[in-house]
Amino acid sequence: MQWSELGQQSCSMARTLSVIGDRWTLLILRDCFLKVRRFDHFQDRLGIGRPILADRLQKLVDNFILTKVAYQERPTRYEYRLTQKGLDLYPVIISIVHWGDVHMAGKKGPPVLHRHKSCGQLFYPVQVCSECQEPLDPRHVHVEIGPGARSPSHLPIDEPAGKAAPEKNKAAK
Amino acid sequence: MQWSELGQQSCSMARTLSVIGDRWTLLILRDCFLKVRRFDHFQDRLGIGRPILADRLQKLVDNFILTKVAYQERPTRYEYRLTQKGLDLYPVIISIVHWGDVHMAGKKGPPVLHRHKSCGQLFYPVQVCSECQEPLDPRHVHVEIGPGARSPSHLPIDEPAGKAAPEKNKAAK
Repeated sequence: MQWSELGQQSCSMARTLSVIGDRWTLLILRDCFLKVRRFDHFQDRLGIGRPILADRLQKLVDNFILTKVAYQERPTRYEYRLTQKGLDLYPVIISIVHWGDVHMAGKKGPPVLHRHKSCGQLFYPVQVCSECQEPLDPRHVHVEIGPGARSPSHLPIDEPAGKAAPEKNKAAK
Repeated sequence: MQWSELGQQSCSMARTLSVIGDRWTLLILRDCFLKVRRFDHFQDRLGIGRPILADRLQKLVDNFILTKVAYQERPTRYEYRLTQKGLDLYPVIISIVHWGDVHMAGKKGPPVLHRHKSCGQLFYPVQVCSECQEPLDPRHVHVEIGPGARSPSHLPIDEPAGKAAPEKNKAAK
C-alpha cells in the first residue's frame, strides 16, 4: 500500500492519517489550539520552512480543518482558524500531549500544565465510554464489523474473519 | 528544526511524535490494539514492505512500547505485544479512529464499531476532565507553564510570555 492510497482505505484511522498524519501538520494543529493563527507566528514557533508551512496550512484549509479569515486589508492578510471539524481534533492532540507528559517528560516534569476553566483545577484528560461514562480500557473493548466495512482487515485477528484475514487481504490488495 | 531534533524538544507533543509520529507506526499500533502480534500478520494486513515493518517494530521495541515474546522454538519466533506504555497509547489511537468515523467515513458509515464489554453498549470515546469529569472543550482549557518548560514557545500566543515568543524562539533555535 502506498501513502497516496491511504485516503481510499475503509479504515477510519488510515483516512484520518491521510489528512493529519504528517508530523508537521500535528505540530501546526497543536499550535492552533494554543491560539496561533498567523503564518509568521507558526513559522517562528516551529522553525519550519515557509514552503512546507504554506503547503501544510493549505492542506488543512482544503480539508476544512482550518479556515482563512482576513484580518487586514491593503494588503489583505489572512489568519488561520480552526473550524468545528478542526476543534474536534482536540482529543487527538491532548491525548498525544498527555502520553508524552507521562512517558516522555524529563525529570523536571511536563513543560505545560492544563487547567480546566470550568472547575478551576489542573487536570489531565480521561477517556470514558459515551454510554456508561466509565474510563476506557482497551482490554474491555470489542471491535465489530461496521456498516462501512469493505474488508475484514480492520477486525481483530482473533475474530473469525480476522483469522483468515492475511490470505483474504492479499487478494484484496 | 529538523525531525531528528524532535526528541530533544521540551514539548510533550514533539517528543511523542519523535516516537510514534510515523504513519506506518500509527497503523502498526492500531493493529496491535486489534491483537495482531506476528510479523507476517502485520505485513499481510498493512501491505507494507518487510524492511520498513521490521524497522518500525524494532523502534517500538527500543522505545518499550512493544515487547518481543518468543512463541515458538527451533527456530525461535517472536511476537510483539503491547507493554503498559504501549497500552497507554489507546486514547491516541481511538481518538484518531473516532475523528475519522465522524468526519471521514463514507455514506455507509464507519467500517468498525466498538462495543464496551463492561456495559455491553456500542460506544464512542468521550474525553473528560480528570477532576470534574465534565467533557473537555478546548475553549475551556487554560494552558500554563509547567515545571519542565525550557522555552515559552509552547504557551498560547495570547499569554504574556507567548506574545514575545517569536523573537525568543529564534534565538533558542
